Amino acid sequence: MGEFPTVTDVARVAGVSRQTVSNVMNTPGIVKADTRARVEAAITALGYRPHASARRLRTRRSSTIGIRLDPMIDGISGSVLDRFLHALTEQADARGLRVLLFTATSPEDEIDQFRRLNDGADVDGFVLTSTTADDPRTAWLLEHDIAFVTFGRPWQENDFTDPSHLWVDVDGHAGLYAATRAQQDAGARRIAYLGWPSPSGTGDDRRRGWHEAMLERGDVSAEELARLEVVTTDGVDQGAAAMRQLARTAGGIDAVLCASDALALGAMIANPARVSVTGYDNTPIAAAIGLSSVDQPVDEVAAGVLELLTGEFEGQVSHAPDSASPRYRMVTPRLITRQFEAIPRDSVPANALVDEVSR
Amino acid sequence: MGEFPTVTDVARVAGVSRQTVSNVMNTPGIVKADTRARVEAAITALGYRPHASARRLRTRRSSTIGIRLDPMIDGISGSVLDRFLHALTEQADARGLRVLLFTATSPEDEIDQFRRLNDGADVDGFVLTSTTADDPRTAWLLEHDIAFVTFGRPWQENDFTDPSHLWVDVDGHAGLYAATRAQQDAGARRIAYLGWPSPSGTGDDRRRGWHEAMLERGDVSAEELARLEVVTTDGVDQGAAAMRQLARTAGGIDAVLCASDALALGAMIANPARVSVTGYDNTPIAAAIGLSSVDQPVDEVAAGVLELLTGEFEGQVSHAPDSASPRYRMVTPRLITRQFEAIPRDSVPANALVDEVSR
Repeated sequence: MGEFPTVTDVARVAGVSRQTVSNVMNTPGIVKADTRARVEAAITALGYRPHASARRLRTRRSSTIGIRLDPMIDGISGSVLDRFLHALTEQADARGLRVLLFTATSPEDEIDQFRRLNDGADVDGFVLTSTTADDPRTAWLLEHDIAFVTFGRPWQENDFTDPSHLWVDVDGHAGLYAATRAQQDAGARRIAYLGWPSPSGTGDDRRRGWHEAMLERGDVSAEELARLEVVTTDGVDQGAAAMRQLARTAGGIDAVLCASDALALGAMIANPARVSVTGYDNTPIAAAIGLSSVDQPVDEVAAGVLELLTGEFEGQVSHAPDSASPRYRMVTPRLITRQFEAIPRDSVPANALVDEVSR
Repeated sequence: MGEFPTVTDVARVAGVSRQTVSNVMNTPGIVKADTRARVEAAITALGYRPHASARRLRTRRSSTIGIRLDPMIDGISGSVLDRFLHALTEQADARGLRVLLFTATSPEDEIDQFRRLNDGADVDGFVLTSTTADDPRTAWLLEHDIAFVTFGRPWQENDFTDPSHLWVDVDGHAGLYAATRAQQDAGARRIAYLGWPSPSGTGDDRRRGWHEAMLERGDVSAEELARLEVVTTDGVDQGAAAMRQLARTAGGIDAVLCASDALALGAMIANPARVSVTGYDNTPIAAAIGLSSVDQPVDEVAAGVLELLTGEFEGQVSHAPDSASPRYRMVTPRLITRQFEAIPRDSVPANALVDEVSR
């Protein structure tokens, strides 16, 4: 793409930030007149055309979108991305688009794949998953004017007001808020939360849903609330250990909400008091063993991703923050409630997972 | 591909079957001299070149293989194909090959996709899953001389002696034979089997492994053996129902082997007598709840598929049945034994799966 000027080139020539260049193109009213004139001069001088590469690729008509196949992690939590890939492929097919898979071991490796596929005109654009704050992948794609949409918000201050790129995400805050409310409405007061270490975009978002609903109801003090929270890395064994820690330190709990089904399964295993446990992702394992869980509607996510991406191919996505068609889609998850009586309790020892013998 | 003569064209001109044309090219010694002369004349007259399309596509160098993303079925048994896709994509990447996904609702629909991707030179060849006897997809690909390898054998008499196409499969017979032997060695005599209705290539293959090991040991009569078998469609509820049927009609059982983890999970749910249950596919749910299961080594399957497919691209695969490099790879599964004490028993009601409330 070296032969085509980018937003960065314009910003450098005009002596302004990339955001200012973006503002001049999308919301010129908010930019001072002399700055605007400088940017417009740079755009003319360089012959910059927004999304030239997307248009160029469109004429080559690969009709293909590229996506990294996320590595298999523990086989439980990872399945939501497999479900998303199924939904994306099915809906892409209905739109005459193909899905090209690749793997990558790091963000840098994924960027290498972007470069290779883009140079070869193998794809029209990319779908990214598992975004992080200051994601080097999205920065690189923006820099190279390559069309893309992320499943996962940019995790910046302006995600909603003026997002740096197109995104679709599931509202984890709403999911945990609803799960907490459901337990409160069923009479639970001391509701614990098993979550991931901060900073974690998705983890912090889900935790805030629980925290906010708890503070609003006011059944427990802020001090007690801190004792109802355990932070751990994801996994079944970690969930069991966190549940045991709660039993020692929380002073009695009525229900447990978890950031993942893997943690929730562990919590159910180390749950002699039979308190209600709710997971997140509504994985097959949750359905199979009768675990309540927050479901991410991957069909809606895939529809949003393709709508934004094909709009971008066709130059139909407004980049103005006050546009009627926003540059993101926020999908509301659904709480799936299952009979708590259905949950296996202390019948499953925590060492079930490691006690494997290969013959 | 219409401009290139196919095996079918040669067969028609020579007045012989496609198999005879194949024999002339691969094992001419077994073909009568005058038939051979007629076929060779037709080959010369038509300018037929075996695998011309594979070579032609190779020069276009899409370096891409196409695979149908299997529809999500119940989220339990289907995960082995997701694991295979992960392994295939990772290993293809290491070989500089890309994986193009598509969906299809029927074999005919999948053939339409083959035609479209092949006409567009989007792929060098295909990987197929879930083969059946008299599979219309493999017949079409052979007819059009398009390179492909199947995960799943052709399910014909000559799968090993002279397979009609390149294939890789997991030896389900060996998996169930080993699982039966393991139970027999642990003292079980009356070992039941929950399987799928016949004809089912994979289902019949697995069942034979159990049946053979039972007949060899001779602990039960052939008549009793028939009562130890229940046939049902796949699913958790079906597994539970089959287990209840066994309790009524089998007259006492020491262990249960199942054609899938979904059936095995159902069997565990309806298992008040706490007999040992073994599943098939070693899904995440088996690991999570401590269920013994037969593991399909998808890494080895993917390696075999890519070895055969790239060999085909490069014209290195011998089509002679007595070749030192056979046209198939049979992968042996591994029995993963987990502590039976770990299994949740009657604590999970069979209605856990349907008792869902969406809020």
